[in-house]
Amino acid sequence: MTSPPDDDTAPQRRGYRKGAERRAQILDQVIRMVAEQGVDASSLRSVAESLGITHAALRHYFPSRDELLLAVYHEHEVREQGAPDRVKSAVGDMRDSAVRNRAVPGLVQLYTTLSADAVQEGHPATREFVRERFTGLRAELAESIASDQAAGRIRPDLDAVDLASLCIAASDGLQVQWLLDPDAVDGERVLRLLERLVPPVD
Amino acid sequence: MTSPPDDDTAPQRRGYRKGAERRAQILDQVIRMVAEQGVDASSLRSVAESLGITHAALRHYFPSRDELLLAVYHEHEVREQGAPDRVKSAVGDMRDSAVRNRAVPGLVQLYTTLSADAVQEGHPATREFVRERFTGLRAELAESIASDQAAGRIRPDLDAVDLASLCIAASDGLQVQWLLDPDAVDGERVLRLLERLVPPVD
Repeated sequence: MTSPPDDDTAPQRRGYRKGAERRAQILDQVIRMVAEQGVDASSLRSVAESLGITHAALRHYFPSRDELLLAVYHEHEVREQGAPDRVKSAVGDMRDSAVRNRAVPGLVQLYTTLSADAVQEGHPATREFVRERFTGLRAELAESIASDQAAGRIRPDLDAVDLASLCIAASDGLQVQWLLDPDAVDGERVLRLLERLVPPVD
Repeated sequence: MTSPPDDDTAPQRRGYRKGAERRAQILDQVIRMVAEQGVDASSLRSVAESLGITHAALRHYFPSRDELLLAVYHEHEVREQGAPDRVKSAVGDMRDSAVRNRAVPGLVQLYTTLSADAVQEGHPATREFVRERFTGLRAELAESIASDQAAGRIRPDLDAVDLASLCIAASDGLQVQWLLDPDAVDGERVLRLLERLVPPVD
């Protein structure tokens, strides 16, 4: 059942829609800037300049740099969710991310920045976001690991949550090593090694 | 053979020694401050204040905050080298670090800060330090893994350098998860899980 738009609220709704479109436009641009030039390109000043809007207009949508960075990372993750090769297996998932991330070192750098901010004082929203992200990701991967264990694809004697923590940690740590030394460290190959360790022993 | 001090250079030497002592004193104090209160306690201003010296005097020894943080981390690592339980096995080593690090979350936080700075523009000395640290650590662990493989303690079909990268990455990534959620993530236990995966299959 669809109802006709309520004339009383239509202008306000158009305002909301316009605001949402503007916000999406800004995120689009910042994702592109960060992917190409890294986190340093994402100061509120340079973002406003590249969009041809005022600093004040940008702050209307994103009151602080932390909030902008979190929104950018969240939007990037939402888009990643639609990647066709997602959720095959716990380790395989991390490995697929490593492959996709090769194309967007700036967004990997952004993730590293958010993690470091999260463990410092003075970034409560970032801490909350990263903490919740780990909690959710651990639960999601642990569930997928438990299915793999039930199906005989992963050793049944491994704690599913601990193995989930290990996969996430390995993936995060490898990204830093790869960013600093892409010729020496191939995250995808190292995660393939981890993948070879977890099946049951015949 | 010991020679008597050269009278011509003695005053200068005393100057060097006094400078080195002062520098060590500063590092001592900052390691304590960071271990107790985290990286935020380590602004040049608050360090100078707590030592009762001027900002200028502090900058004589450590011209920038990056240099101070690097020196603090390096000094902490040098002290760790003397830990009695060091270098038993590649994964075991990481696991022992995880146990010791529980007591010094501020220094773990410092390590996370240095890693994040390293992958950004604008911190060339930090990038160089962290990059070299990874290169050295990978080589050292790979050697220890190769010995374990020769002795039949680790599966011979695993690439020693890739496994070294994996151990370091897991350890680094787990520290972040642990800092954010110490009740949910026990780095030492997760690394024990990794340790159980690497021995040869009978």
